[in-house]
Amino acid sequence: MSKRNIAVVITARPSYSRVKSVLTAIEAHPNLRLQLIVAASALLDRYGSAVNYIEQDGFNIDARVFNVLEGENLTAAAKTTGIGILELSTVFDNLSPDIVVTVADRFETMATAICASYMNIPLAHIQGGEVTGNIDEKVRHAITKLADYHFVASEDAEKRVLKLGEDAGMVFNTGCPSIDLAAPVLQSKGLSFNPYKKYGGVGAQPALENGYIVVMQHPVTHEYALSRKQVEASLQAINHLKIPTLWFWPNVDAGADGTSTGIRAFREHHALEHVHFFKNMESSDFLELLYHSKGLVGNSSVGIRECAFLGVPVINIGTRQHRRQQGGNVVDVTYDKEAIKAAVENHFQNGRLNSSDIYGIGDAGKSIAALLSSLPLRFHKTIVY
Amino acid sequence: MSKRNIAVVITARPSYSRVKSVLTAIEAHPNLRLQLIVAASALLDRYGSAVNYIEQDGFNIDARVFNVLEGENLTAAAKTTGIGILELSTVFDNLSPDIVVTVADRFETMATAICASYMNIPLAHIQGGEVTGNIDEKVRHAITKLADYHFVASEDAEKRVLKLGEDAGMVFNTGCPSIDLAAPVLQSKGLSFNPYKKYGGVGAQPALENGYIVVMQHPVTHEYALSRKQVEASLQAINHLKIPTLWFWPNVDAGADGTSTGIRAFREHHALEHVHFFKNMESSDFLELLYHSKGLVGNSSVGIRECAFLGVPVINIGTRQHRRQQGGNVVDVTYDKEAIKAAVENHFQNGRLNSSDIYGIGDAGKSIAALLSSLPLRFHKTIVY
Amino acid sequence: MSKRNIAVVITARPSYSRVKSVLTAIEAHPNLRLQLIVAASALLDRYGSAVNYIEQDGFNIDARVFNVLEGENLTAAAKTTGIGILELSTVFDNLSPDIVVTVADRFETMATAICASYMNIPLAHIQGGEVTGNIDEKVRHAITKLADYHFVASEDAEKRVLKLGEDAGMVFNTGCPSIDLAAPVLQSKGLSFNPYKKYGGVGAQPALENGYIVVMQHPVTHEYALSRKQVEASLQAINHLKIPTLWFWPNVDAGADGTSTGIRAFREHHALEHVHFFKNMESSDFLELLYHSKGLVGNSSVGIRECAFLGVPVINIGTRQHRRQQGGNVVDVTYDKEAIKAAVENHFQNGRLNSSDIYGIGDAGKSIAALLSSLPLRFHKTIVY
Amino acid sequence: MSKRNIAVVITARPSYSRVKSVLTAIEAHPNLRLQLIVAASALLDRYGSAVNYIEQDGFNIDARVFNVLEGENLTAAAKTTGIGILELSTVFDNLSPDIVVTVADRFETMATAICASYMNIPLAHIQGGEVTGNIDEKVRHAITKLADYHFVASEDAEKRVLKLGEDAGMVFNTGCPSIDLAAPVLQSKGLSFNPYKKYGGVGAQPALENGYIVVMQHPVTHEYALSRKQVEASLQAINHLKIPTLWFWPNVDAGADGTSTGIRAFREHHALEHVHFFKNMESSDFLELLYHSKGLVGNSSVGIRECAFLGVPVINIGTRQHRRQQGGNVVDVTYDKEAIKAAVENHFQNGRLNSSDIYGIGDAGKSIAALLSSLPLRFHKTIVY
Repeated sequence: MSKRNIAVVITARPSYSRVKSVLTAIEAHPNLRLQLIVAASALLDRYGSAVNYIEQDGFNIDARVFNVLEGENLTAAAKTTGIGILELSTVFDNLSPDIVVTVADRFETMATAICASYMNIPLAHIQGGEVTGNIDEKVRHAITKLADYHFVASEDAEKRVLKLGEDAGMVFNTGCPSIDLAAPVLQSKGLSFNPYKKYGGVGAQPALENGYIVVMQHPVTHEYALSRKQVEASLQAINHLKIPTLWFWPNVDAGADGTSTGIRAFREHHALEHVHFFKNMESSDFLELLYHSKGLVGNSSVGIRECAFLGVPVINIGTRQHRRQQGGNVVDVTYDKEAIKAAVENHFQNGRLNSSDIYGIGDAGKSIAALLSSLPLRFHKTIVY
Repeated sequence: MSKRNIAVVITARPSYSRVKSVLTAIEAHPNLRLQLIVAASALLDRYGSAVNYIEQDGFNIDARVFNVLEGENLTAAAKTTGIGILELSTVFDNLSPDIVVTVADRFETMATAICASYMNIPLAHIQGGEVTGNIDEKVRHAITKLADYHFVASEDAEKRVLKLGEDAGMVFNTGCPSIDLAAPVLQSKGLSFNPYKKYGGVGAQPALENGYIVVMQHPVTHEYALSRKQVEASLQAINHLKIPTLWFWPNVDAGADGTSTGIRAFREHHALEHVHFFKNMESSDFLELLYHSKGLVGNSSVGIRECAFLGVPVINIGTRQHRRQQGGNVVDVTYDKEAIKAAVENHFQNGRLNSSDIYGIGDAGKSIAALLSSLPLRFHKTIVY
Repeated sequence: MSKRNIAVVITARPSYSRVKSVLTAIEAHPNLRLQLIVAASALLDRYGSAVNYIEQDGFNIDARVFNVLEGENLTAAAKTTGIGILELSTVFDNLSPDIVVTVADRFETMATAICASYMNIPLAHIQGGEVTGNIDEKVRHAITKLADYHFVASEDAEKRVLKLGEDAGMVFNTGCPSIDLAAPVLQSKGLSFNPYKKYGGVGAQPALENGYIVVMQHPVTHEYALSRKQVEASLQAINHLKIPTLWFWPNVDAGADGTSTGIRAFREHHALEHVHFFKNMESSDFLELLYHSKGLVGNSSVGIRECAFLGVPVINIGTRQHRRQQGGNVVDVTYDKEAIKAAVENHFQNGRLNSSDIYGIGDAGKSIAALLSSLPLRFHKTIVY
Repeated sequence: MSKRNIAVVITARPSYSRVKSVLTAIEAHPNLRLQLIVAASALLDRYGSAVNYIEQDGFNIDARVFNVLEGENLTAAAKTTGIGILELSTVFDNLSPDIVVTVADRFETMATAICASYMNIPLAHIQGGEVTGNIDEKVRHAITKLADYHFVASEDAEKRVLKLGEDAGMVFNTGCPSIDLAAPVLQSKGLSFNPYKKYGGVGAQPALENGYIVVMQHPVTHEYALSRKQVEASLQAINHLKIPTLWFWPNVDAGADGTSTGIRAFREHHALEHVHFFKNMESSDFLELLYHSKGLVGNSSVGIRECAFLGVPVINIGTRQHRRQQGGNVVDVTYDKEAIKAAVENHFQNGRLNSSDIYGIGDAGKSIAALLSSLPLRFHKTIVY
C-alpha cells in the first residue's frame, strides 16, 4: 500500500502548538507522509516566527506561503484570505495531498478549507464544534460544513458537530492535541529554566520564587475599537496587584494594534516594576511556566484547555472564550479592573487544582494519525437531516 | 431615517433569475437603496451575459467584478474565488453597504460571504437550507454559518437552517423569489413568441404545436470526469424519442467542457432532426416555454422549484438535485438512456399538474425587502446550541 | 560543473513557434537543464491549446500557470499580468532557475520579466529591439530595460537595443529562432498533407492545386474599437478576389472579440465559397502551407519574418508591424478593401522570391543555448550612457 | 472645456516629498482635477505613515490601496507589485483619469505604470532618466519605456531619456519638484523647532548648538545580505566621531530588516551617547534640519538633490546613488569605517557651499501642472530610432 500524503497547513504560532503532536504522530506513522505547509503570520518575525520553532523541532517544511497583506484592518483580513486561496491552490496542485488538515478557526484557515474542498481533496478539521465569542465563531462552524472529517477536542464539541448535520461516522472525539504537549509537564517539580535569560523580553524582572501570575490577552475582532480599552482594564488591575507578572504580547489580528498600543502607552506612564513582557516562548516552556504559576489572567484558549488539564487556576476575561466548555479551573470576569483584581485575589489563593480530562488525556496526536491512515478517502457529503 | 444600502452580488445567469423580484422590491422600497454588483460569469458572453438582461430590465449596476480565471478546472474554481475576495472587498470598501445579500450556493458566492463576514457587514443569504448532491452542498451550508439573516424558500429549508444552529429570530421562510417571476405565467394561454426567431440558436427547428420537451442538464462538479458520459445518456434518450426538443446549453462550472464536448460530439454523428439548441433565454420567456411544454428533462433546479409552482412534469436525472424538497411533479431517474426514455413516455403523458406552493406563492421579493429594511443590523452571532 | 537551470516561460501559441528550436537546443545541451513553464493563453482551448503541441513535441512541462482573467477588455489584460506575477513568483521560488528566458512582447510577458528581475534572477530576452505599432511596442522596450541578456533577431534590432543603453557585451544577434523551423521547408516540393483533413476547420473547401492565399489578421490593441471594421476590409477584399483562401482565426488580445465577431457576422451574410477557416496548425505544416501559397495577407509577424526567409510575397495591412525590418517580400497597405485587392493582384503574380537572411540562417536555437551556458550570471546592470 | 482628471499614485514617504509641490500646483490649476491615490508603504505605520502627512497637508485622498505583502524578501516584492496591479486597475476603472502620474523608481511603481499603459491611459513619469546603482535602475528605465510624458529633473536626465528613444516633444526638464520644497529653507536663519520635542524618537539627545551630523542610510536591494554589514561601517564611524548625530531609520525595502537589525544590535552594545534616532519628519522640517547641519552622511538621494540646492556637504556611501548627476557638495566613499570617518572630518569642516541649480530652481510643480493641462492626450508611441 502506498503512503497517504497528509498536508497540514499552519498559519499562526498558537496553531502550531495545537497540532505539534499530530505532526509528530504523522511522521512516525508507517503509512503516512507529512506535507507541512507554513503560511501567513507563522512566517513573520513580528508575530513570533512560529516557523523557527517548527524547524528547530526538526520538521521539514514542504511549502511556505506568504499571504499576509499589511494593513491590520478588516479589509486586509479578507484580502489575506483571498491571497491565501491563490497561493494554497498552487501548493495543493504541486503536492497532490490525499488529505488536507486544517486547524481550529483563525480567519485565514478558511483559505485552506476552500482550496481543499473546491479541489476535491478530503478535508480534516481539528478542533471544530467549539463555541467562542467572535469572528472565529462564524469561521469555525463554516469550516465544519466544508470539512469531511472532524477531530474534535471534547464531548461538548462532538455533540455540536453532530447537531450541525455531520455524518456520525466521520466525527471523532480525539481530545485536543495541545494536551499531548501538556502531559509531560505534570511531572515537573519546578521551573527548569530562567525565563528572562532564555527569552529576553522587556520590562522589570521580578523574582519568581514566591509565585507569579501569567497574562495573555488577545484583541477580540468584533470589538475592534475596544481592544485598547479592554487591555487597559487588565493593565490597571495588574498594576494594583503588585504580584510578579509575566505578560505575553498578543498575536496578530485586526485590532492587534489596539491591544499593543494600549500596552505600550500604559508602560510609558507607569513603572510596572513587577511586570515583565515576553513576545513568545516555546510551548513546552510556556506550559511549565503556567504549571508553576499562581494562575493565568486573560482570554487565551490555553486557560480553558491546557490549564484544565494542568489544574492551573484561570481568570478568563470577556467574551473571547464565550461558551467554550470549561473545567472547574476557570472564573469568568468582564473587562473591569476591580472585577479582575478581586478574581485574582480570591481564585488564586488555593493553589493548583486536580487535572481534568475534558480536553483529552494526551494521546490525541496518535489517534488522529491512526484515523488519517484508515478513514475512507471522500470529499463528497450530504447533510444528515 | 436614512436609507439602508443593500448590496446584492449576482455571479451567474440563474442567480439573477432567482433574485430579480428582490431587486425590484428593494428599488421600490422607500427605506432601501439598491447597490447592484455583477460579477463572475454573469459578465461573460460565453455564459450568457446575464449582465445584458440586467441592464435591459432597467437596473443600474454599481460595480462590475471580473474574477473568472480561465481554465475550467478545479484549481481555477478555487482561484476564481480568491480573486473574487480581492475584488469584492474593495467594492464593499467603496460602497459601504449596510447589508450584503448573497444568493444560493454557487462556489464563487463564497467570496461574497467571506468579504461581508470578515468586514463586519451583516450578511443575508437567500435560498439556504436546501439539500443537493454536489459541491454546492458544502458551499450552501458553510454560507449559512457565515450569514446573519436567512431568507429560505421552503419549510423543509427552514427546518434545516434552524437545525444548523441559527437563531430562530433570523430565519424567515419567504418562499423562493424565482416563484415571483413564474406567477404571471399561470395566466398564459399559449406561447407568445417564436423561440427560433427571438433567440436563434443552432440545430433543427421542429414544429412545436403538437408538444415539445425542454432539456437542461448541467455538469455535476464532484463527478467531473463523468459529465460527458452523463450527458450522452440524455442525448441518446432524446435521440430515440423523436419528440420535438428544445435543449439549453449548460452554465459555467468545472466540467462544463465535458458536457459541452459531449453535446458537440454527439451532434457531429447524429442528425438530431427534432432537436434545437439554445444558449439562453429571458427568464419570463423560458418559464412560458416550460409552462406550455410536455415537460422538462435534466437536472436543473428549475424543475424542482418553478415547475412545481407551474405544474410542469419533470424528469430529474442524477444526483444534482438530491434531496431538495420536491412537489408531485418530479420523477427521479439515473443517468440511463432507457430509464430516461421510459420516464418521459410515462410521466409526460398526463399533461400539466396542479400548482404547488411548496416554494412560495409569489411575494418573496417584497417580503425580503421588508425584512431588509426592518431587521436589526448585526454581524455577530453565536450558535444556538 | 553543475548544469544551469534555464526557465523558459511560454504564454501563447505564436511564442511557442518562436522558441521551439531554442527549447530543443537547451535540452540537447550538456550543461543546461530546461525548466519549461506554460502559462496564460498557451494553456487554453479557445486560443489553440499550444500546450498540446508542446507535449506532442515531447517537451516535459515543469509548471502550468493559469492566469488569464476572463473579460477580454483592457482592465482584464492588466489583471492577467498581475495574477501572472503572483503565480510566476511562486514557480520561480520552487524551480530556482539560474536564468529566466522570456519571448518577444506580448503584454503578459511583463509578468515574467518583473518576477525575474525583482527576484534577482538573470533575465534573457528573445526578439527585443524590434519596432511595431501597438501596445507591444511599449512592452518590448520596457522588457529590454529589465533584461540582462538580449538575443535579437536582426541587425536592425541589435542596433536599437544598443541605442537603448544596453551593454554591448550582452547583446547578440542570433537571428530569429522561428527561422530555424522554416529552414527544412526550403526543401519541400509540394504540400505534404491535406489541410482540410488534418485540421478540420469550417467553411468551404476550395481546391488548392491552382494556388491559394493565406490570411492571418490580428486585432491591434490601441485601435480596440476598430478591430471589427479593420477585418471587414480584408473580408470584403478576399470576397471579391475569388481566389481560394485559407483564413486563420486571430489569437487572444483585448479586441479579439471585435475581429472574431467581424468574421462571424460577415460569414452569415456572405457565401464565401472559396474561403476556409482554420483555428490553428502545427507550425511546420503552417510554414509549408505558406511556402506553397501565392502569398500571405494580414498583419502577422510571420509575414515579415519567416516569409522573408521563405521568399513568400506578403500584403501587410495596417500598423501592427509598423517599422519592423522588412525584406523585399512585403508590400504595405492600409485597411482599405480596394488597396488590399489591388496589392494582391499585383504583388502575388510573380511567384516566390529569393530567400533573405535578415532574420537569420536557421541556427538561432543553438546559438542561444550556447550563450545561455557560457554567459556570466548577473542580474545587476547600469545604463551605458 | 472640462477639467482633466490627473491621477497621482504615491507609494512611499520619500515619493510624497518629491511630488508635494506638484500636487499643490495641480489642485491650484483651473483646468485640472487632482485624483490622489495613496498605496503600499505610504499607508503603513511602520514605514512612517506618509498618509498622515498627506492628510495634514490638506489633500483629499481618492483611493487607498493596500498592497504590501508581508515577508520583506524578494518574492514578496514581486507579489506586492502583482497585487498592486490587481488593485490599481480597479481604481483607474473607477476614477477614469485622463492622465496617470507616477514618481521615480521604487519597485512597486511598476504596478502604476503597467496599469496605465495597459489600460490606454496616458502615463506621465516624474524623475526618469537618472542613474543609480540598484534594482531601481531597471525599474526607472523600464518605466520610461512605458511612459508617454517625461518630466525630468536635470539636464543629465533629459539627455538620457532622449537617448532612450523618446520623442523630444514629450520630454521636459522641469527641475525636481523636491527642490520646490527646499526653496523657502534658503531664508532660514536657524532651527525653528526642537526636533526631540516635536518628533520624539529614541536614544541620546545631544546638544545641537555646536553643530550636528544627519545620517540616512537605506538598504541596497541587490546587496540584500550585505545591508547589515554596510550599516555597521557607518555606525562604527559615527560612534568614533563623537559628533552630535541625528540618525533616520531606513524606508521599506527587501533588506530593511538587515539595516534595522544592524542598527538595533549596535545600539545594544554601544552607548552612542551622542546619537539620536528618528523614524521620520515632515519634509520642510527635515530640509531645515539638513540646512543647518554640518552635513549629511548616507546614501539618500536627498544628499544628491536637495543638498545640492541647499549647499549642504554630503558624504555619499556606496553604490545606491551611483552615477546620479552630482553637484560639488558630494564626496563619495565606500562602506568603510575609516573612509567615512576621514571624509566627515575633511569635507564637513568648511561649512555650507553655494546653492546649485542642477536639479532646478523651485518651480517644478507649477511647470508640471501647466504641461499636464496642455499636452495632447496620447497613449500610443513608437521608439524614435
